[in-house]
Amino acid sequence: MNVGFIGIGRMGAGMAANLLKAGHRVTVYNRTPGKTRSLITQGAYVARNIGEACQGDAVHTMLADDEAVESIALGSGGIVASLAAGAIHISSSTISVALSHHLANAHADAGQQFIAAPVFGRPDAAAAGTLFVVTGGRTMAVEKARPLLEAFSQQIFPISDLPEAASLVKLSGNFLIASAIESLGEALALIAKAGVDRHQYIDLLTSTLFSASVYKTYGNLLADRKFEPAGFAAPLGHKDIHLALAAAEQLRVPLPLASLLRDRFLTLFAHGGERLDWSAIGELATLDAGITAT
Amino acid sequence: MNVGFIGIGRMGAGMAANLLKAGHRVTVYNRTPGKTRSLITQGAYVARNIGEACQGDAVHTMLADDEAVESIALGSGGIVASLAAGAIHISSSTISVALSHHLANAHADAGQQFIAAPVFGRPDAAAAGTLFVVTGGRTMAVEKARPLLEAFSQQIFPISDLPEAASLVKLSGNFLIASAIESLGEALALIAKAGVDRHQYIDLLTSTLFSASVYKTYGNLLADRKFEPAGFAAPLGHKDIHLALAAAEQLRVPLPLASLLRDRFLTLFAHGGERLDWSAIGELATLDAGITAT
Amino acid sequence: MNVGFIGIGRMGAGMAANLLKAGHRVTVYNRTPGKTRSLITQGAYVARNIGEACQGDAVHTMLADDEAVESIALGSGGIVASLAAGAIHISSSTISVALSHHLANAHADAGQQFIAAPVFGRPDAAAAGTLFVVTGGRTMAVEKARPLLEAFSQQIFPISDLPEAASLVKLSGNFLIASAIESLGEALALIAKAGVDRHQYIDLLTSTLFSASVYKTYGNLLADRKFEPAGFAAPLGHKDIHLALAAAEQLRVPLPLASLLRDRFLTLFAHGGERLDWSAIGELATLDAGITAT
Amino acid sequence: MNVGFIGIGRMGAGMAANLLKAGHRVTVYNRTPGKTRSLITQGAYVARNIGEACQGDAVHTMLADDEAVESIALGSGGIVASLAAGAIHISSSTISVALSHHLANAHADAGQQFIAAPVFGRPDAAAAGTLFVVTGGRTMAVEKARPLLEAFSQQIFPISDLPEAASLVKLSGNFLIASAIESLGEALALIAKAGVDRHQYIDLLTSTLFSASVYKTYGNLLADRKFEPAGFAAPLGHKDIHLALAAAEQLRVPLPLASLLRDRFLTLFAHGGERLDWSAIGELATLDAGITAT
Repeated sequence: MNVGFIGIGRMGAGMAANLLKAGHRVTVYNRTPGKTRSLITQGAYVARNIGEACQGDAVHTMLADDEAVESIALGSGGIVASLAAGAIHISSSTISVALSHHLANAHADAGQQFIAAPVFGRPDAAAAGTLFVVTGGRTMAVEKARPLLEAFSQQIFPISDLPEAASLVKLSGNFLIASAIESLGEALALIAKAGVDRHQYIDLLTSTLFSASVYKTYGNLLADRKFEPAGFAAPLGHKDIHLALAAAEQLRVPLPLASLLRDRFLTLFAHGGERLDWSAIGELATLDAGITAT
Repeated sequence: MNVGFIGIGRMGAGMAANLLKAGHRVTVYNRTPGKTRSLITQGAYVARNIGEACQGDAVHTMLADDEAVESIALGSGGIVASLAAGAIHISSSTISVALSHHLANAHADAGQQFIAAPVFGRPDAAAAGTLFVVTGGRTMAVEKARPLLEAFSQQIFPISDLPEAASLVKLSGNFLIASAIESLGEALALIAKAGVDRHQYIDLLTSTLFSASVYKTYGNLLADRKFEPAGFAAPLGHKDIHLALAAAEQLRVPLPLASLLRDRFLTLFAHGGERLDWSAIGELATLDAGITAT
Repeated sequence: MNVGFIGIGRMGAGMAANLLKAGHRVTVYNRTPGKTRSLITQGAYVARNIGEACQGDAVHTMLADDEAVESIALGSGGIVASLAAGAIHISSSTISVALSHHLANAHADAGQQFIAAPVFGRPDAAAAGTLFVVTGGRTMAVEKARPLLEAFSQQIFPISDLPEAASLVKLSGNFLIASAIESLGEALALIAKAGVDRHQYIDLLTSTLFSASVYKTYGNLLADRKFEPAGFAAPLGHKDIHLALAAAEQLRVPLPLASLLRDRFLTLFAHGGERLDWSAIGELATLDAGITAT
Repeated sequence: MNVGFIGIGRMGAGMAANLLKAGHRVTVYNRTPGKTRSLITQGAYVARNIGEACQGDAVHTMLADDEAVESIALGSGGIVASLAAGAIHISSSTISVALSHHLANAHADAGQQFIAAPVFGRPDAAAAGTLFVVTGGRTMAVEKARPLLEAFSQQIFPISDLPEAASLVKLSGNFLIASAIESLGEALALIAKAGVDRHQYIDLLTSTLFSASVYKTYGNLLADRKFEPAGFAAPLGHKDIHLALAAAEQLRVPLPLASLLRDRFLTLFAHGGERLDWSAIGELATLDAGITAT
């Protein structure tokens, strides 16, 4: 297929490379042009503006936040203004439910299609083509986009006809990870104050009940009490919890654990933790327990 | 070895049977004698009172709660009064940190040894001999008890010289499971109110980020919204969270998520949920969101 | 002084009437014109549009929410577009910190002045001229506006040079009231389940430690378990807690009690409570305790 | 009447003095005998042991906690063992609901009467005879004790026939005060981080909506950020919240705000705050917001 790809960050670079490997014609666009260089050597075309990335059957976006997606998609000379009728905008960014809904309407009004296709997985999975994709959008559009999505994923989960539902599912996934971090953080504060070794404890947990990689990854970060460099920066984690709470507020769903997570992020930021990995919220229970920083 | 086994419930029956299979001489005791019948056919001797179960190198207890352990261990004619000097009491019950500490002292005063050896795993793992054992106690005592512990477990984690530390670790494990239930409950409330199918959502989660059996087991129970019959009854779950909070209060460790879980159990019980599986606390977020019961 | 008054609701009607009584020349404007009738008989002039209400030394606004203030102040033909250089916009609406800040900038850019002057008190105090006014704005502007503010208040508290600080103080006041409601709600759930009479209990509290009118008013509503008709509707209370949390998020201030209140409102709304008085959030502890509705 | 008085601390001293002023025959007992000296000069008799304080129509106790009351009332040579049939034990200590219930039974079994008569008010009110008394107990017993209670109180509230109900009401009162402290603490963190002066803010609040003395007393302590010397020490506050939660757990009443308060106390103690006034929990929101200690 002939597809544009906008947003060549750590995730987008791997996804676009896999689209090329799968034989698609890929035209890349990034605000900071330097980042597209390696993809060009792999066969990508370069767009000088958003419009040039919107000339194919579809355009894929992988951007940092609502603001970036809004400006790229809805601004003058943006995707809605540039895409052909019937073409598809596939958005893999983690964005708000409200924006997802708004984009669906804007594309529909322009005779275009919109799929929210957020992904689970880290940059290494994007590079390896082993992401998981959740899709929200009309079945016909998802089927049309399937060859693209398969290029970088090991499995596709069509979760709803509504794009915003997929965005919500993605947000809920990050809420679940942050919850696991919080629970590990409280458990570690408790056993550490009783004199149990933190690493031995995490080994025990992850050899038994909690073998999932989420517990291994974050359990070890928390046992090490080392949150730099950030794999996933705390402000991004906060953003997702914020968006989950915003969606919950609209839907009238009280989420006390999500509120606790939100307060953890604010405490972290109030003490200068913006540059840390988001798992640093799990250290706060230890500090509250009066165990001094290493 | 020559070992007594007190407490032939669903867990204890499997553990004692594995001790027999491993060739140990096992003398069983249970308040309700009928439950020992099947073990007798497997070669077990029967004690008519606690004292008769305390004539060997060690006595193992697997009882419901603090009250049961206290009466069996510390009552007149109980374990402390009956065990030979140097013999070991191995306690696999999930009990309070305070009682664990108290038993260690009582046995030491009587020249006996005490190991807290709580286990992770359900009755099927007890029967299969694939439990995980966490031990708290002096290395020498743990080493002496090792042939017994190995009979029913796949791995032994010596976590501390102090029995109470092992009790705390066990409590913290149940806190972590309950936390996972709460987080799944909130996530399900959120996505269900947005129209996403609960089972599809759990399939997605457990195929991707959350492959641990805890998430599979409880995710499916929560998606089914079916909490009877109870695999692990809610009052037992409440007891463990209560004991974790009690230990945390002594240690001066604030645990906001554990407090939330405690309130969930109280709400459940205030509405007649004592007979349900403990995962029913994860349904409360759905009810708070105004989604009616099935 | 020559002053416009926009927003003739239950509060605004009393405030404007007091401006007339104090001898000011008052030109009123309301979207629904019928509401201005009674003020006309008291001597008010009527503006046919926003611009006509902006011809004097100052214009006072008393509107429902951010949306209303934004459209009246910033829309085409709105206050910023109409007010003379040097004239003052006095805003008594309870609005977000962000909008308060934005208005201050917009008026400054237009060479006008802006004061946030939120009030504490109910419609009867507005009618009696016994409100309390908190002001945020430059001292010179506040002093110039003082004769107007004095017309309907018993005391003026200049809290900051920054309008948004006064808006925040107003929001924090409603947070404190909602907190008192929550604490009363929990206490009532507890003592009622133990068999103590709810009215006797409130009598005791308000005769002793908690004589403030907030505790009397809401304590009696909670003891009566009667939340209709609404004195202050729950969605308005929710809006203020939402705005307090939004300001706290910007300022990096974790507020766990405010988060609890937010969840209470969401639970209330998820069960159809939008039409109730905001004190109905205090009934939720009683329902969680399994005490059935009257 | 002929009455014993056990527990001559800061509260008891004032209460006993007022009993003397009202013309009663008072026999005082205190573990540390020195404290009774001033009462002797006012006409009190001194008991050399608990039994000697139990020879009259009634004995009044005003002690620190459950442990003290249990040992004085239920120990060998204690009140239950010493009081005449038909005589009354009036307990003004703040104790657990469970102990209150237990004492009622113990006294009934001994043919004696028991009233829980906790008081609201500080030492100065005890000295001035202006306490508020809440009574739990049989009407006949309360009426008989009334001349004693009137000696040191301005009003008596018979709240229930059950002593434990009065104990619960007392605990709930301290919960409400701690809740007010928490809410003030969060509000102050919020407005202070926005640059508003803390004292000006408390002046505003207590001149308007929150004129109750609780808000004045604690609002000023919080604005001063000065928590020494302690008027009511934090461990006592923690004890009462702990007892309220224990009662709530028995009654199946979830109290999320009380859980938050409990965690605040634990955080305070984990950082060495045992010697501070209990209002120091209200400073924690400020510290969480990253505002450094003065």
